[in-house]
Amino acid sequence: MTNIIIYNNESKAQRIVDELKNKNPIFVCVIANTETGKIKGISAAGQFPEVTDYTPPADVEYVLFGKPSCIPFIPVTPEGIPTPAIITKVSLNLADIPMIVVDGGLKVKPAIPFITIGGEPGNDIRTGRAAQNVAEVIKRAQILGQTLSKFSDYLVIGESIAGGTTTALGVLSAMGIDAKNRVSSSMPNNPHDLKIKTVEEGMKSAGIDFGDLKDEAVKAIEILGDPMLPALSGTAIGFAEEKPVILAGGTQMAAALAVINSLEPNVLENVAIGTTKWIIRDKTADLKGLVNQIKNIPVLAADLDFSESRFGGLKAYENGAVKEGVGAGGAAIAAMLKTGIDSAEINKAVEKEYERLMSLK
Amino acid sequence: MTNIIIYNNESKAQRIVDELKNKNPIFVCVIANTETGKIKGISAAGQFPEVTDYTPPADVEYVLFGKPSCIPFIPVTPEGIPTPAIITKVSLNLADIPMIVVDGGLKVKPAIPFITIGGEPGNDIRTGRAAQNVAEVIKRAQILGQTLSKFSDYLVIGESIAGGTTTALGVLSAMGIDAKNRVSSSMPNNPHDLKIKTVEEGMKSAGIDFGDLKDEAVKAIEILGDPMLPALSGTAIGFAEEKPVILAGGTQMAAALAVINSLEPNVLENVAIGTTKWIIRDKTADLKGLVNQIKNIPVLAADLDFSESRFGGLKAYENGAVKEGVGAGGAAIAAMLKTGIDSAEINKAVEKEYERLMSLK
Repeated sequence: MTNIIIYNNESKAQRIVDELKNKNPIFVCVIANTETGKIKGISAAGQFPEVTDYTPPADVEYVLFGKPSCIPFIPVTPEGIPTPAIITKVSLNLADIPMIVVDGGLKVKPAIPFITIGGEPGNDIRTGRAAQNVAEVIKRAQILGQTLSKFSDYLVIGESIAGGTTTALGVLSAMGIDAKNRVSSSMPNNPHDLKIKTVEEGMKSAGIDFGDLKDEAVKAIEILGDPMLPALSGTAIGFAEEKPVILAGGTQMAAALAVINSLEPNVLENVAIGTTKWIIRDKTADLKGLVNQIKNIPVLAADLDFSESRFGGLKAYENGAVKEGVGAGGAAIAAMLKTGIDSAEINKAVEKEYERLMSLK
Repeated sequence: MTNIIIYNNESKAQRIVDELKNKNPIFVCVIANTETGKIKGISAAGQFPEVTDYTPPADVEYVLFGKPSCIPFIPVTPEGIPTPAIITKVSLNLADIPMIVVDGGLKVKPAIPFITIGGEPGNDIRTGRAAQNVAEVIKRAQILGQTLSKFSDYLVIGESIAGGTTTALGVLSAMGIDAKNRVSSSMPNNPHDLKIKTVEEGMKSAGIDFGDLKDEAVKAIEILGDPMLPALSGTAIGFAEEKPVILAGGTQMAAALAVINSLEPNVLENVAIGTTKWIIRDKTADLKGLVNQIKNIPVLAADLDFSESRFGGLKAYENGAVKEGVGAGGAAIAAMLKTGIDSAEINKAVEKEYERLMSLK
């Protein structure tokens, strides 16, 4: 499979690729809101931070229906840059992979079926009280993962939450993983200093220091995390007890890896990260450096390429915009593994879907 | 399969039994609350009508965990009669059949993962405004059914709601199906007159007569139904577009059948009812008479027998207590079809599980 880049723990990664070929995955998207995503400059939300409450439900509605129903506009920035859900949607459709949506903690609920596991929307991590009910959500998510493992051969689990790399930095830092200047961003100019300052304020509020919560993942999430992390980590744990799991995302998945490693290290035998080329080539971040501080699980990356696109909005991905999200990389990898299509077919289908999206304007 | 009674449309029922042997089902339980269930004398809830808000979540928590977590007591009446979920639990465990819970409209949410599709708790049907958001719930449930059909060979879908046979009488009557004295009851003495009076009050409040909503299932549910019906019917429609569905329950499933027949009659090719022996032998009700007024789909019944039980609480089932619920009959049928076990093994496992339950007291 030449269009899946083997990026970490090569021998094991190759075994996973071989093992999952032609198998039937289930795609889960965990969506959640957090006030952290509304901090000015943290995310790509720009001058309308309250829009970040709508982005996650809009993403999954778009994947299912072809347009959001909770907001009256298409999921494309004013500059024409589309949500990464465009890659997810196209990949799931090409390979007929079903999606299940999990509510990690939402202020705005999507108008589609979704699974509730007791999560609440997250607070601004500068308060040092980022997320509630974390242990209970992990417990219920684990049951969910166990149930889902009976329906499919492997799990691809992604997320949509604004500000997620900042909360990832928070959790990783609390757990003693050096993540400064290593988390990615959906913007070409990665605001590392702002993220670090935000996390430091949260640590100060909670009276903790770097590494103080080395083996206390639940507390690290409660203080500096977001509601996506317990839902995603718990589901992955429950599923990985039985079958393979691909954590579908960028550097946020390093935080999920740290959580899983702290709670149920044995299941990591069944866990890999699946992301995009844009994440592993991101000069402003270091996924591999994060992962290998925790556990050298395989990292796979979908070798997507929008450089030949007719549309500036897609070409922007090649210049560091967006990069990943809504499990885009993992969904593309799963589509290639299931059907044998190459990434050129995904690029082409994205091009066509982008054209359709713009015609809805 | 000698322990599955073929009760209606024999030739087609036999084909379904043959077709589903050794296949992998998914079990869905739709739970909801309605004020109708609190009308004095309507349901077995007795002198504590507010307990009916807790019964549905307690049922599914019990199936998953072996004891409820939302109430501090075991799901057994003071007379020692257990919830029908005991049959469901034992059957699903014996055959390793996964359960998915759907929130049709709950006041009390279970402490387990469940699917939300926009339902609200139901009102007292005497108001003539029984349920809200019905069309939207059906639409989302249909998407859910389509998604679930990708995970399994067939669907067994049951319910837990108090007062459900009264709301079934309401919907059936509004749709012109003669259901007076034909719906079943969880009590040996079926309070037909009270149910009829309740429905008549609802009709009067809404200004409608018997049969006025013959082809208007959504309106019939809105006026005289409950929140379980749109969730269950919609899920069944979406799944039956692709694969077989067993509506798991008693005379309430005749109301679901009427709704499905009105909205998507073509999918009925893929729909059967699965219930218990106690329902088809119920002298106070007439499931076959209801079904055949609508569409002569197959009816199967699990030939369970608690007459030899050492426990009065289980023997009570042979004297007309409980009879069905939480998809007990359908779950037992699915367990027999999947594994080839006979009903004696289910009876035995129920006996053992009842003993365990009583030891928790």
